[in-house]
Amino acid sequence: MPEIRQNMATKQWVIIATERARRPEEFVDPSRQPSRLTLPELDPACPFCPGNEEGPDMEVTRLPEGAAAWKVRVLKNKYPALQRHGERVRHFDGVHRAISGVGYHEVVVETPLHNVSPALMTAEDLALVLQAFQMRGIAMALDDRIEHVIYFKNHGLRAGTSLVHPHSQIIGLPVVPYDVRSRDEEARRYFDDTGECVYCAMLRDELEDRRRLVCENEDYVAFLPYAALSPFHIWILPREHHSSYLMVSPIAIFRLAQICREVLLRLYVSLNDPDYNIVLRSAPVKAWYADHLHWYVSLIPRVTQTAGFELGSGMYINTALPEESAAFLRSVTLEG
Amino acid sequence: MPEIRQNMATKQWVIIATERARRPEEFVDPSRQPSRLTLPELDPACPFCPGNEEGPDMEVTRLPEGAAAWKVRVLKNKYPALQRHGERVRHFDGVHRAISGVGYHEVVVETPLHNVSPALMTAEDLALVLQAFQMRGIAMALDDRIEHVIYFKNHGLRAGTSLVHPHSQIIGLPVVPYDVRSRDEEARRYFDDTGECVYCAMLRDELEDRRRLVCENEDYVAFLPYAALSPFHIWILPREHHSSYLMVSPIAIFRLAQICREVLLRLYVSLNDPDYNIVLRSAPVKAWYADHLHWYVSLIPRVTQTAGFELGSGMYINTALPEESAAFLRSVTLEG
Repeated sequence: MPEIRQNMATKQWVIIATERARRPEEFVDPSRQPSRLTLPELDPACPFCPGNEEGPDMEVTRLPEGAAAWKVRVLKNKYPALQRHGERVRHFDGVHRAISGVGYHEVVVETPLHNVSPALMTAEDLALVLQAFQMRGIAMALDDRIEHVIYFKNHGLRAGTSLVHPHSQIIGLPVVPYDVRSRDEEARRYFDDTGECVYCAMLRDELEDRRRLVCENEDYVAFLPYAALSPFHIWILPREHHSSYLMVSPIAIFRLAQICREVLLRLYVSLNDPDYNIVLRSAPVKAWYADHLHWYVSLIPRVTQTAGFELGSGMYINTALPEESAAFLRSVTLEG
Repeated sequence: MPEIRQNMATKQWVIIATERARRPEEFVDPSRQPSRLTLPELDPACPFCPGNEEGPDMEVTRLPEGAAAWKVRVLKNKYPALQRHGERVRHFDGVHRAISGVGYHEVVVETPLHNVSPALMTAEDLALVLQAFQMRGIAMALDDRIEHVIYFKNHGLRAGTSLVHPHSQIIGLPVVPYDVRSRDEEARRYFDDTGECVYCAMLRDELEDRRRLVCENEDYVAFLPYAALSPFHIWILPREHHSSYLMVSPIAIFRLAQICREVLLRLYVSLNDPDYNIVLRSAPVKAWYADHLHWYVSLIPRVTQTAGFELGSGMYINTALPEESAAFLRSVTLEG
């Protein structure tokens, strides 16, 4: 019989469709070609490749800072969803509510190499990307107009990216999105009822249960949530309670890079470099020290498609058992 | 400057990205071929085509009822997300909450013709599909285990369908999805504050403003919401307040078919038969007479893709102005 599971943090239900469940191997797309074999290291037509860079007025920062040979480069988005300058003004008119579209929309170019997959980058290089996230997140948080920052990565066409050069994006918003506020409220309710952060409770449960674990290190644990939205949906949670990513120490950022790299490599090897979205979920910027919120990384491989049911219900149908997906990812042999 | 608009019913914010806004014509995919030209009327390999039908044990009902030559056929889904028989049991175990996956998952085959686009069907034939929705919705609502019914259609590959033969789906759930409950709560709050259904208020505003109207008839109004999620996102609202689709009269179902047909035809002609998802949003089955809820049809053409930002924020970025999209759809000349 199928099972409908609830995520205790978000309170969202997920159908674990055992009747249509597929074996983990069935999600492998054998037609995929690793981009390091099919693409050049440098593409003269790519706006992110060294040598083609847009003018310095588009650069926000680079790492190492000031270096001629950058490893990570943060740019203003050429077609930004929000406008950097201007006042945050609210408009009220009958049943209409609007707010001026001020905020940040930046691109993090993760490497000078056009054809590398993030799974194949070193932890040192990935740490620079995560460091750039934090630097820019702090800068945005210090801007009074900004209420929330979304850090995300779209890897591959199915995940919604149009540019193949490895990059991620940061959007600083002048509002707290509705869904983020809902999660805040649900977590607060759990804290009121139990005196504990719901994410800390879930993490403890996963560490005891172990069936959904993917891998772990000193500071982080990667697992499929009990109510995973889709096959191979993975959460990477810090063991230590912090509501905001902006509070994370440099050494903890490095260990985050290490575990991200291991998770990405396990997906790369076992599922043949699948497309995926990554979101780093940090508390709204004015909730840096919330007892009830816990920052984390969520990764959703795009091995299935959402459609009318998900639009209409907000629910997901997961056609794989989280316990089986986790065992599959644990079984991957990583060289070196 | 971009604008962040709020939908007063759902309270969700949408970025109307004027800086990246595209003209309505730019969303036309010229490579598309109408399926009536590229596909046969009858496909011997299609499980929904007459002659290939699955056994009578898979049929739930047909319209006209009892007719040998059916026009609409409701089937049990061959790979159901939920199981028809069994008890609804809740499980509580530490931080885990689950409920047995009982419920309905049915397919509505909309026409015997393999290659017809719903936009090209007659209002009479579309009305039979909508009648089947209501019949099955009532049957599910009478089942004590069912809390909510989702009616949806995925048209085209980008909208998540794998079978080309025109069909829609109905899923009867043993829980009210989190997002549906959130909408219920927000609408109730508006009602408490104003004594009015928020959807009735929005409809009145659209009829006064007129810039976002697509078309209307005696019983229905089709418009792009002020905070449309994406280009050509359309709501079809009944003028009369009813929380549940299950209360709609046969004549009002026929007029719904008429306006759906006109909306679909305007999209078909102007955007070259785009892929789309349709959701019919009706109140949870135990809220048949709610003062604060209003059933409606939501249509989202899949002309853009959602990615990490939407996953992480629940917000959408609309790269078209709703007022321009509506004017574009109004300007379409329909023959006959």
